[in-house]
Amino acid sequence: MKLIKNAAGRLVPTIVNGKKQIPFKGINKYKPKGHKSGPPLRSCIDYPWDGNKVQKSLREALKKAGLKDGMTISTHHHLRNGDALTNILFDTIKKMGVKNIMWYPSASFPVHEHLIKYLEDGTIHHIEGSMNGPLGRFVSQGKMKGMGVLRSHGGRYQAVQDGEVHIDIAVIAAPQADPFGNANGLDGPSACGLLGFALADSEYADRVIVVTDNPVPFPCVPWQIQGNNVDFVVEVDSLGDSSKIVSGTTQVTKSPDRLLIAEYVAEFIEAAGIMKNGFSLQAGAGGTNLAFSVFLKEKMKAKGVKARFMRGGSTKYLVEMLEDGLTDFILDGQTFDLEGVRSMRENPNHVNTSPFTSYNFHGKGNFASMVDVAVLGATEVDVNFNGNVVTHSDGYLLHGIGGWQNCLYSKCTILAIPSFRDRIPVIVDEVTTLVGPGDLIDVIVTERGIAINPKRKDLIKAVKNSGLPIKTIHQIKKEVDEICGGKPAKPKVDRNKVIAVIKWVDGTVIDSVFKVKE
Amino acid sequence: MKLIKNAAGRLVPTIVNGKKQIPFKGINKYKPKGHKSGPPLRSCIDYPWDGNKVQKSLREALKKAGLKDGMTISTHHHLRNGDALTNILFDTIKKMGVKNIMWYPSASFPVHEHLIKYLEDGTIHHIEGSMNGPLGRFVSQGKMKGMGVLRSHGGRYQAVQDGEVHIDIAVIAAPQADPFGNANGLDGPSACGLLGFALADSEYADRVIVVTDNPVPFPCVPWQIQGNNVDFVVEVDSLGDSSKIVSGTTQVTKSPDRLLIAEYVAEFIEAAGIMKNGFSLQAGAGGTNLAFSVFLKEKMKAKGVKARFMRGGSTKYLVEMLEDGLTDFILDGQTFDLEGVRSMRENPNHVNTSPFTSYNFHGKGNFASMVDVAVLGATEVDVNFNGNVVTHSDGYLLHGIGGWQNCLYSKCTILAIPSFRDRIPVIVDEVTTLVGPGDLIDVIVTERGIAINPKRKDLIKAVKNSGLPIKTIHQIKKEVDEICGGKPAKPKVDRNKVIAVIKWVDGTVIDSVFKVKE
Repeated sequence: MKLIKNAAGRLVPTIVNGKKQIPFKGINKYKPKGHKSGPPLRSCIDYPWDGNKVQKSLREALKKAGLKDGMTISTHHHLRNGDALTNILFDTIKKMGVKNIMWYPSASFPVHEHLIKYLEDGTIHHIEGSMNGPLGRFVSQGKMKGMGVLRSHGGRYQAVQDGEVHIDIAVIAAPQADPFGNANGLDGPSACGLLGFALADSEYADRVIVVTDNPVPFPCVPWQIQGNNVDFVVEVDSLGDSSKIVSGTTQVTKSPDRLLIAEYVAEFIEAAGIMKNGFSLQAGAGGTNLAFSVFLKEKMKAKGVKARFMRGGSTKYLVEMLEDGLTDFILDGQTFDLEGVRSMRENPNHVNTSPFTSYNFHGKGNFASMVDVAVLGATEVDVNFNGNVVTHSDGYLLHGIGGWQNCLYSKCTILAIPSFRDRIPVIVDEVTTLVGPGDLIDVIVTERGIAINPKRKDLIKAVKNSGLPIKTIHQIKKEVDEICGGKPAKPKVDRNKVIAVIKWVDGTVIDSVFKVKE
Repeated sequence: MKLIKNAAGRLVPTIVNGKKQIPFKGINKYKPKGHKSGPPLRSCIDYPWDGNKVQKSLREALKKAGLKDGMTISTHHHLRNGDALTNILFDTIKKMGVKNIMWYPSASFPVHEHLIKYLEDGTIHHIEGSMNGPLGRFVSQGKMKGMGVLRSHGGRYQAVQDGEVHIDIAVIAAPQADPFGNANGLDGPSACGLLGFALADSEYADRVIVVTDNPVPFPCVPWQIQGNNVDFVVEVDSLGDSSKIVSGTTQVTKSPDRLLIAEYVAEFIEAAGIMKNGFSLQAGAGGTNLAFSVFLKEKMKAKGVKARFMRGGSTKYLVEMLEDGLTDFILDGQTFDLEGVRSMRENPNHVNTSPFTSYNFHGKGNFASMVDVAVLGATEVDVNFNGNVVTHSDGYLLHGIGGWQNCLYSKCTILAIPSFRDRIPVIVDEVTTLVGPGDLIDVIVTERGIAINPKRKDLIKAVKNSGLPIKTIHQIKKEVDEICGGKPAKPKVDRNKVIAVIKWVDGTVIDSVFKVKE
């Protein structure tokens, strides 16, 4: 395998799974040529005139879709760790005797540990998509036949749109669908809110199968997935475990350190002048982020500030802000709790978005760069503000990228992170895996202080007299290393064996993940 | 020019505007090969990070879009006869000294008579799109440089999707838009309801310009047109004359003959057993159709029948049915009055549709064939049930196809027409122009009786004892010819000079329109 050094100084392969790669060229340096992928032309002649595309089983639908060895099959993570369908899908593929599938999930979860046996027996050749938990560990051990490819949510859309990944069959779990294939995630036992991660697949895959446990008569409205893009519909008893699809309760952190981080973030946003009428915000759903939402809400109320839009993953905390009139809109990428689902179903100002609208870098702009402030996490950050979200310091690939890379384009990107976890420092000399270049990361907020990227002189000036514990990143790192008894050990990896690559938002390869020596 | 006889026995050119054509092969006989058109890949790098795509003028936007001689420019008829923008657009193009534009409107209206001078001076080379009224007369006189191409709403989408028509620049009039290009037709001085006819253009054109007289801050919700497909936004004082965009009042016919037709249609639908719980309906907005809606409503109320969906163009009569609980949904292609606009804005069950969802024949099915009954008009119908909607018996091309061809795919297609107009019989031996094959037309309802296509033995049987005045089409024709003093005169046309062709829903050429000798 040939590795070359890319513009970030990282060693990356030039060929991945038989396809030539473009090494990362620097932020905003690479532009695509050519045209969007054109899926096959179809004719109404080949579809039922009455619109009823229901098949008797998933197996039947896969057969009609022409399933064969070596195909690329896509699924989506709307059902999160409650997803039963993907496991059933691969059980079915296995029974049909089909081999060497490239699985292209929008994300995978611990529930998909079930699929390890299919990676071992050759049913699945390799995975391009996030490999959270057990699958990531399996891949880190060098056990997957092909190479993993990790993309951001936007990068996944871009890869399909650009024709970099050709999906043969998309299998879309739909909490509500009609016989024509119109589908949404708003209602039913598996309600998950929206189906935006399946949009690219529905538009570009050769064949599209919608699977639902909640069939409704035509028309299923709103059609988040359009039946006009769907070939077959399959009805099943259950798509999965609804308690793991969305949770009724999402908990604010109780850790004093994390509460402090959350408070610092809210104070920073106010002090920097970002929290003003008409501003916009993206925050995730971790315990720290939820606490941050609560602190920010109080500040907004106190100052009489209203946001124009907030981006989810939504939770009840974001929904409360919408319903309390603290934001005009939620532009939501996924709903993390039942309140989020309810709000999206009922409130026209709680708008479902997709990686196309929000994150596709090979489009005519996207929403991410319009956001005033994004609050994100990381597994590691280094003294040059580079961020890692996929590997731990021991080298194991245990997380996906999600929308993290895409969100770095916000006008102010804040990483809200504890300075150490399990006595391992989070701030390091050099990130184990480069997922986000430091030039796009503006502020690191830890419980030990706030470090502002020296390039953001404007922010440094703005918070100068705020009383916030502004420090250099080196200062914070020094403190943490002392507490933890030194830097983290270097990961023991085989630098000749790349087990996965990390794509940048423009489809270039920004870093490699190496096999862990056990 | 080489003309060959197609499967309908009509003479059609093999080349149109330099492009090879496929002659009509019969209903459901032609299937496309290949792939959908792939528009150019773009990069966020080339778009403003803050999402503000506003240009200082339409001229500036056209310049940045690379306007040059011979390009194809598209516009849309959402503003109907109130549209000022298209005329301003071509005034601008003329001032920029650009020539030989192919104009690709979704429809044209009498207000576009203004453009005749540009057809004469070479600014516009030719029009592919409906040419209602004055433009049609001009073209019928053989005065247009290129050949007209008439497509149904679905055929227009199909042609763009298939790459048969490549749009260089789409100019979309938007009653409401944000600086990113998200747009809808729901509000503002030029509110027209929806923007579905511009969907294909926004998806496939090389460059997309949104022009609005009602700018709103990001996000403009719902985004009927997605800003992610838009290159430039232009703000203008006014898009046109709102009183001609939608009318506050749409009048039910007062003509006793037309009222009788409307009553017969409603009675037929009831007698044939179509009007039952969960049925679906498409009806247009002419005076006869409105009267039909009123009659049907009473019948539905009397029998306690509820429809699953009704398709517009919507008017207050359809909206009343939705609000009175007589239908679950309106699936609307365009809104014809202010009540339609209001309902679409306020009622989530009044759903905006597009030619993609409703009519695209090169898709995975569409809505049209799922409709239980469609009530349509025609300029002529012949004894073989063939229909014409574009020319009059004198040969003049005066109307567009609209969704008419697409709607013929409903399970029961009824033409509701007066048996004569201005003492000229509407039922003829052979239609002047074949727009819809008789095999798809099931029932002709006139004030003199109802003719059922002999192929629909099921319908003949169903209404046998209904007491309705069922006659053969020959019987009705004979009566009408006697009243009118004979058949219409043959049009005086030059059969060597094709001035326009009519496309079938699958992109094949079903008939030619010839130059009228004056």
